[in-house]
Amino acid sequence: MKDSRREPAGDKLAPKAVVNRVCLYLRQLEVFQRQGETTVSSSQLGAALGINDAQVRKDLAFFGQFGYPGIGYRIDGLIGELRRVLGIDRDWPIALIGLGNLGRALLKYKHFRRRGFQIVALFDNDPHKVGHTFDGLPVHQIDKLAEVASTRTINLAVLSVPADVAQIVADQIVAAGIPGILNFAPTTLTVPPSVSVVAVDLSVQLEHLAYKVLNSQSGFPAPASLFDEANGR
Amino acid sequence: MKDSRREPAGDKLAPKAVVNRVCLYLRQLEVFQRQGETTVSSSQLGAALGINDAQVRKDLAFFGQFGYPGIGYRIDGLIGELRRVLGIDRDWPIALIGLGNLGRALLKYKHFRRRGFQIVALFDNDPHKVGHTFDGLPVHQIDKLAEVASTRTINLAVLSVPADVAQIVADQIVAAGIPGILNFAPTTLTVPPSVSVVAVDLSVQLEHLAYKVLNSQSGFPAPASLFDEANGR
Repeated sequence: MKDSRREPAGDKLAPKAVVNRVCLYLRQLEVFQRQGETTVSSSQLGAALGINDAQVRKDLAFFGQFGYPGIGYRIDGLIGELRRVLGIDRDWPIALIGLGNLGRALLKYKHFRRRGFQIVALFDNDPHKVGHTFDGLPVHQIDKLAEVASTRTINLAVLSVPADVAQIVADQIVAAGIPGILNFAPTTLTVPPSVSVVAVDLSVQLEHLAYKVLNSQSGFPAPASLFDEANGR
Repeated sequence: MKDSRREPAGDKLAPKAVVNRVCLYLRQLEVFQRQGETTVSSSQLGAALGINDAQVRKDLAFFGQFGYPGIGYRIDGLIGELRRVLGIDRDWPIALIGLGNLGRALLKYKHFRRRGFQIVALFDNDPHKVGHTFDGLPVHQIDKLAEVASTRTINLAVLSVPADVAQIVADQIVAAGIPGILNFAPTTLTVPPSVSVVAVDLSVQLEHLAYKVLNSQSGFPAPASLFDEANGR
């Protein structure tokens, strides 16, 4: 039993959609925990998130056997297991590269620190920023990345630079030995297979919202009337 | 045939994961189109994105019969169909509410405009910002939302205000008759069923990256060594 919890099923990396749902389960379990609950069933967990119970069980089974017959899931235990599976049972020191508006917003983003993600070093190439401090952290020139990464552990890089320099900076991140990049630049990065990249494209979320609004079945104006004025301009 | 393209299968709203993948297919088809390709198979499309061909066919079949036997998909046609399905074959005038660092970053985010999402009105409650212009747009007081929305079409709201005021502002968005909210505030919004919400939680993306790095099978330092130093601090 213990062994089955230590490794993902068949040593396969869980699909992106599964990992994203597990992140949601964890958040919901933490809500239940704050409400004083001690156990939860897959259907209760799913109902709170609009996901059916079979999907919940299948997703969790990808990472091990967490449920107890007749009880469901023990909330404290499952939170601990999922935090371990996701790797957020530890600190992740992060380099933030690019201190434009987006970078500065990310620096203040409280959700990151709450999940163990701590921005510990800042980089930018703007001479007006290098040497100054933001939120108590000094800004280094980007070509100092390898040097800074050699003096302290940095496990992830958050890349919020303009698209036209993103690949050059990604090459420097790779050269510095940082194994993960969260890419906010609207361009596809080429990195060796040893480096993981997750790309954030915020327009995907807007497209999803547009799709939901257009297909809303709740009596909102039909697409045609929604867009009469917009189309008439 | 035509009819089957006009409506999602069984009038069901496509699951979030399907919509997100279709957004990716559309982006990849546009890459192929720029490269001068005219047709593509489900396996070519999938291979470019690391998604298997059966999944590609199943996702696209949710919205209609787009493939041609022996040819695959006609790229121009499929792009047009997917843009229509996703609702990005038209303009989406957007209100951006909250002009902190994140809001100002979103205002400059070129991806939005490229996909038909155009920020047309700005709102904030900071007296230093109200009445000033950002990128040529005047900033209105948030309680002017309904008034501004009544004089011009606004179909979506991008909400980038602090968590503690997000619900109050969401209520004002609902009262103004805006049917969709992209919520960047780290809090869950309560809205009537007639209003669609897509929540953006950027820490989910970091958790997914952490998971990928920890489970990378490409010879990177194992989790223990990756974290020796971090744990020893």
